Amino acid sequence: MRWNLPADHLPEAWFNVAPHLPEPLQPPLHPATRQPVGPDDLAPLFPMALIGQEVSTDPWVDIPGEVLDVLRLWRPTPLVRAERLEQALGTPARIYYKDESVSPAGSHKPNTAVPQAFYNKQEGITRLATETGAGQWGSALSFASALYGLECKVYMVRASYDQKPYRRLLMEVWGGEVVPSPIDDPTHPGSLGAAISDAVRDAAGRDDSHYSLGSVLNHVLLHQTVIGLEAREQLTLAGEERPDIVIGSCGGGSNLGGIALPFVPDERVELLAVEPSSCPTLTAGHFDYDFGDVAGMTPLLPMYTLGHDFVPPSIHAGGLRYHGDSPIISSLVHSKRMQAVAYPQGKVFDAAVQFARTQGTVPAPETSHAIRAVIDTALAAKETGEEKVILFNYSGHGLLDLSAYDAYLRGQLDQF
Amino acid sequence: MRWNLPADHLPEAWFNVAPHLPEPLQPPLHPATRQPVGPDDLAPLFPMALIGQEVSTDPWVDIPGEVLDVLRLWRPTPLVRAERLEQALGTPARIYYKDESVSPAGSHKPNTAVPQAFYNKQEGITRLATETGAGQWGSALSFASALYGLECKVYMVRASYDQKPYRRLLMEVWGGEVVPSPIDDPTHPGSLGAAISDAVRDAAGRDDSHYSLGSVLNHVLLHQTVIGLEAREQLTLAGEERPDIVIGSCGGGSNLGGIALPFVPDERVELLAVEPSSCPTLTAGHFDYDFGDVAGMTPLLPMYTLGHDFVPPSIHAGGLRYHGDSPIISSLVHSKRMQAVAYPQGKVFDAAVQFARTQGTVPAPETSHAIRAVIDTALAAKETGEEKVILFNYSGHGLLDLSAYDAYLRGQLDQF
Repeated sequence: MRWNLPADHLPEAWFNVAPHLPEPLQPPLHPATRQPVGPDDLAPLFPMALIGQEVSTDPWVDIPGEVLDVLRLWRPTPLVRAERLEQALGTPARIYYKDESVSPAGSHKPNTAVPQAFYNKQEGITRLATETGAGQWGSALSFASALYGLECKVYMVRASYDQKPYRRLLMEVWGGEVVPSPIDDPTHPGSLGAAISDAVRDAAGRDDSHYSLGSVLNHVLLHQTVIGLEAREQLTLAGEERPDIVIGSCGGGSNLGGIALPFVPDERVELLAVEPSSCPTLTAGHFDYDFGDVAGMTPLLPMYTLGHDFVPPSIHAGGLRYHGDSPIISSLVHSKRMQAVAYPQGKVFDAAVQFARTQGTVPAPETSHAIRAVIDTALAAKETGEEKVILFNYSGHGLLDLSAYDAYLRGQLDQF
Repeated sequence: MRWNLPADHLPEAWFNVAPHLPEPLQPPLHPATRQPVGPDDLAPLFPMALIGQEVSTDPWVDIPGEVLDVLRLWRPTPLVRAERLEQALGTPARIYYKDESVSPAGSHKPNTAVPQAFYNKQEGITRLATETGAGQWGSALSFASALYGLECKVYMVRASYDQKPYRRLLMEVWGGEVVPSPIDDPTHPGSLGAAISDAVRDAAGRDDSHYSLGSVLNHVLLHQTVIGLEAREQLTLAGEERPDIVIGSCGGGSNLGGIALPFVPDERVELLAVEPSSCPTLTAGHFDYDFGDVAGMTPLLPMYTLGHDFVPPSIHAGGLRYHGDSPIISSLVHSKRMQAVAYPQGKVFDAAVQFARTQGTVPAPETSHAIRAVIDTALAAKETGEEKVILFNYSGHGLLDLSAYDAYLRGQLDQF
C-alpha cells in the first residue's frame, strides 16, 4: 500500500532543528585561530544564502518557488507500507518507508542539490565543484546543474571511478565533467576526504566557481527535511498517530537527518542511526572537533569522528565511508536523543536480498543498512508482540550497485 | 507537474480492444495444418486462464485481487506533464507521459509478468521459462516469479548476456536463472527469435513448466491496458478532455498497446507507433502470417513481419529488435486506425539526451524512440500554433543502458 500526496502538498518551508536540539550546536572553528568561522571565511566557497542557513535559528526556512518547481519533478515521494516484508517476517510491527529512490538521480541527494544549484546561480556563480564517492552525490549535483544551466566538475574517488563506470556515465549524460581523485596521484585509490580537498581547492581558486557539499553541513540536512515533513503527513493519511521509531542509514547524516529531524521535538519517537561496522563513527568514534577533509582545508567541525586521516575499508556502501558525521546528528547522539547501531556488510546484504525478494525493489547498499535495522527491530517486536510503527528512509535504489549483489550471491562479499 | 491516483484507483478490469477493432483479428494458425490453433494446442505452454484471455471478446476482463495486491506495489503510476521539455522546445503543445519506469524492474513489463506468474501458479505450475533480449522482460518475470515463489529460467540473447551484466545480475537478485542463448551454439550472438525457440523447447519438455512471453500476444497487451486506463483518468484530473495523439515505441507492441488501446474507440484520438529504422516492421514489413520465432516452433501469427529469419542490427534498443509485431497492433495499422513512423538511432539518442537534460530522468533507448516522435510532433505544433495534447508512454528508464549513452556522448554510436 502506498500513500501519495498531491503535487501541491509539497512542504513550502524546511524544518530547522536547531532550536529543538537538547544541546546547542557548537560553531565550526577556523583551524588556525580556533575561533568560530564567520560568513567572510566561507564566502569563497558558498553563496550567502546557504551561509545564512548554516547558522540560522529560525524554526522554519522558506523554500523558494523556483526550487519547489524543480522538486515537483519527483516530489512528494510515496510513503509505502512494506506489507510483504511484514508478512515474511511474521511481525506485528507496521513497517513504512519513504521512497526517495524515485528521484531522477535515484536517491535523496537531489533534495539539496537543487537548492544549492539555485542559490549559487542566483549569486551569479556559473560553475560548481564537488566530490563524490560512489557517485550518488555527484550525479545529483550534475542533474541539478543541468537544470539550472551551470557547469559541474566532479572529483570522484578513483577506486569508484574505475569500478563504477555507470555512475560516471550518468553524470556525463547530465553534462557533468568527472575526473578521478586524488588528481595529483594517479596510483592512489582515493578517499572521500581527499576528494573534498581536491574540490575545495578547485572552487577556492576560481571566481566563477563555488564548492558544493552533499552531506554533513547544517544547510544540507535542512534541505532534506522535506522527507520527514512529507512522511509525517502521509503517516496521518495511513491512519498512524506517529512512528514509534524512525530509522535511517548514516554516513554524513543527510538522509537520516532528512527523515528524522522533524520528529526530534516529539520525544515519544525513537530515532536510530545505522552505520557500517567498518566505519563506526557514531558507535566507536569520539566526539571532538576535527577536519571535514583529509588535507585539513575545511573548518573544524564538532562531531563524532574516527580521525580525518581514517581510511575505511572499501565496502560497497561507498556513501557511508566517511570518517566524521554531521554536527547535528552528532549532537543528537551525544545528547542521547538518538541511538546508533553498526552492522557488518554481510548481514546488510542478507537484509537487502530479503527486501528485494519480498517488496520487489533492489535497495542501494547504503539504504540496506537501514533495512537491516528495520528487520531486526521488527523481529524484536515479534518477540514482544508489540505493534510497533517503524518508519525508515529508503534513501536510494541499487540499480547501479548490482556488482555488489553479484559478489554477495557468489559468496565473494567481504563480511566485515 | 504530476498527477497521482490513490492506490484504490487502480483499474479493476483490463480493457479488451478486440470488440473495438476496425478489422476483426484473424486467428493464429497451426503451422502444419494451417488451421486455427485450439486451446489444447497451447496448453503445454500456457495456463488455461491466459489461453482464454487470448481469444476473449468480452469488453472487460476482471483483474484478480491477488494480482491487484502486487500491482499496488508501484501502481497507479504517475502521469507527468513534461513542462520543462515544452519550454525548451517553445511549443504550445502540452506533453504528458505515463511514468512506467517506477516499477521494481524499471519498465512496464511487470504489468503482465505479475498476472502471468499468478495464473501459472494457480494452475499448479512451479517453473517458468522465457527469453529476454536486453533483459527488461527477463527481469520483470524474475521479479514476478520471486513474489509468487516460482522458479524462473531465462534464455538471454548471448550478445546482451555478454554486454549487459547488470541486467543479468538484476534477474539473479530476484532468484532468476539466466543462461545465454542459443544454448547449442556458444559462438552465435543470438537473437530474440532464437531465444524464444530455446524457451519454448524447455517449457514444452517439462510437466512442471510453462512458457511466458513478454509481448506480442493478445493477453499481454490486455494486461498492459492498465497504463492507458489510468492515464485517461489522470488526464481528466489534469483538466484535459482527451489526448489529441497517443505515442508509444513499438517492438512487439506491448507498451504501445498498453497506453493506446483504451483510446481506440475514440476516433478523435490519433495513435502513433514509433519503431527503429533498422527494424522497420510496421513501416517496411508486409502483413502476412509468420512464425513468432526463428525455429518455427510457434503458431503462425497474422502480423506485419520482416520475415522470421530477419536479424536486425544490434542497436541499443534491444527490446525493439523483433522481426514481427503484435497481431493487435498490426491490425490497427493495417486498418489505418494507427499510424507508424521509424527513426534512426542517432536521432533517437539526440532526443534522449535532450529529455534527460530538461526533465531530469534518463530514458531507456526503447522509450527514447517515442520521445523522438513526441519532440517532432511538438515542434510541428509549434509551426502551426496548435495547442496539441500529446500523451506518450515513458515505458522504462535507461539506468542499465548507460553504456549506450557513453557511445553516443563519445560520438561512437551507429547512426542508422
